[in-house]
Amino acid sequence: MKAAPVRLIVPRLPFWPKLSAEEQAVVSERAVVRRFGKGQLVSSNSSECLGIVFILEGEIRVSMTSDDGREVSLYHARKDEVCVSTASCVIRQLTFDTAVVAERDTSLLVVPAMVCARLMESNVHVRAFVFESETERFSQAVRAIQLMLFKRFDQRLASYLVSHFERSGSDEIRKTQEEIARDVNSAREVVARMLREFADKGLVEIRRGLIKLHNVDGLRKIL
Amino acid sequence: MKAAPVRLIVPRLPFWPKLSAEEQAVVSERAVVRRFGKGQLVSSNSSECLGIVFILEGEIRVSMTSDDGREVSLYHARKDEVCVSTASCVIRQLTFDTAVVAERDTSLLVVPAMVCARLMESNVHVRAFVFESETERFSQAVRAIQLMLFKRFDQRLASYLVSHFERSGSDEIRKTQEEIARDVNSAREVVARMLREFADKGLVEIRRGLIKLHNVDGLRKIL
Repeated sequence: MKAAPVRLIVPRLPFWPKLSAEEQAVVSERAVVRRFGKGQLVSSNSSECLGIVFILEGEIRVSMTSDDGREVSLYHARKDEVCVSTASCVIRQLTFDTAVVAERDTSLLVVPAMVCARLMESNVHVRAFVFESETERFSQAVRAIQLMLFKRFDQRLASYLVSHFERSGSDEIRKTQEEIARDVNSAREVVARMLREFADKGLVEIRRGLIKLHNVDGLRKIL
Repeated sequence: MKAAPVRLIVPRLPFWPKLSAEEQAVVSERAVVRRFGKGQLVSSNSSECLGIVFILEGEIRVSMTSDDGREVSLYHARKDEVCVSTASCVIRQLTFDTAVVAERDTSLLVVPAMVCARLMESNVHVRAFVFESETERFSQAVRAIQLMLFKRFDQRLASYLVSHFERSGSDEIRKTQEEIARDVNSAREVVARMLREFADKGLVEIRRGLIKLHNVDGLRKIL
């Protein structure tokens, strides 16, 4: 697939209409498209500082990691969404370490960190947009952590399956149990055991690399 | 103590210089000072929606709570700081339940929720300010959770004591072990045991309602 030239893509940035003609020219000139394969590291605090990314295709996952490599998933960002966690070097309020990984083959429009820094300085609309996005992401992250800390595991897994259904409109979740475990911050064995329990109750059907939802209302009752 | 009239206090709001004359008049007219005794609930998702608060005196603590009453401290806001978590009804990005409690006798300048909503609509500087504050608070919250999930308890407690020292410049922490336990998201007994260990090593001295730091560098080595 031949990609469209960057100047045809940049108007999809949500803050584009709020940029001056001069700022638009800078973004057109400096933004780049980058591709990441499934599982590839997009950014981390020890790697280069990428900048603000807009997801053209695919999906990324933002997690925090401990010194000894333990990982907690905070949120996912999907097609047509922006992620600013990849610009933490220019957002002094982001003071903890995250890692961003491509969940599938992913194409990103990257507005380089230095360009973001200048826009946030010169344009209060960009500034408001960046922090509004980040507030929304943080809310998602805190809700994920809240589930992890406060809910029984069957509730967490049911909540994950139901919100997947509500977001995608599809009753098929094309993820491995390993991937689901990462998303709900648990171990694969724990996920496998609970999915078998759900399957025994006729709530889901387990197939290879795929969970099919049979009874979404039944899952909702667990929440 | 007789409080100063609100119109003399409102210019202390960080976004005051960015307001139009008309907006300043609305804030002067509608903002109120409210006092809360130590331990009193300032706001929660089931109570009235307060609005943005500016802390004139005292300190508040923001926590998330589970359905069965378990609590995780997210951050503290102190004198001359703003807290926007008390305005979650007008910030649609805040989608999880928090409780805000006065840690000491506290006086707050309250900009009512409906006034905040209108300012955020009409003034992009206020909008940027609100989301920037919230991003900063969320970063604090996620760091607190990160400590809780990833660090040994001696590291968490040492980190708490050291940052208390760095913030206040005082080697005396006037808190009960119960209060410290709440701040580091642990149980009083666990805090008491670890403080005794620290005391045995000559790092701190335990007095009634007070911890005195004897060796801050020693505490830093634990981190």
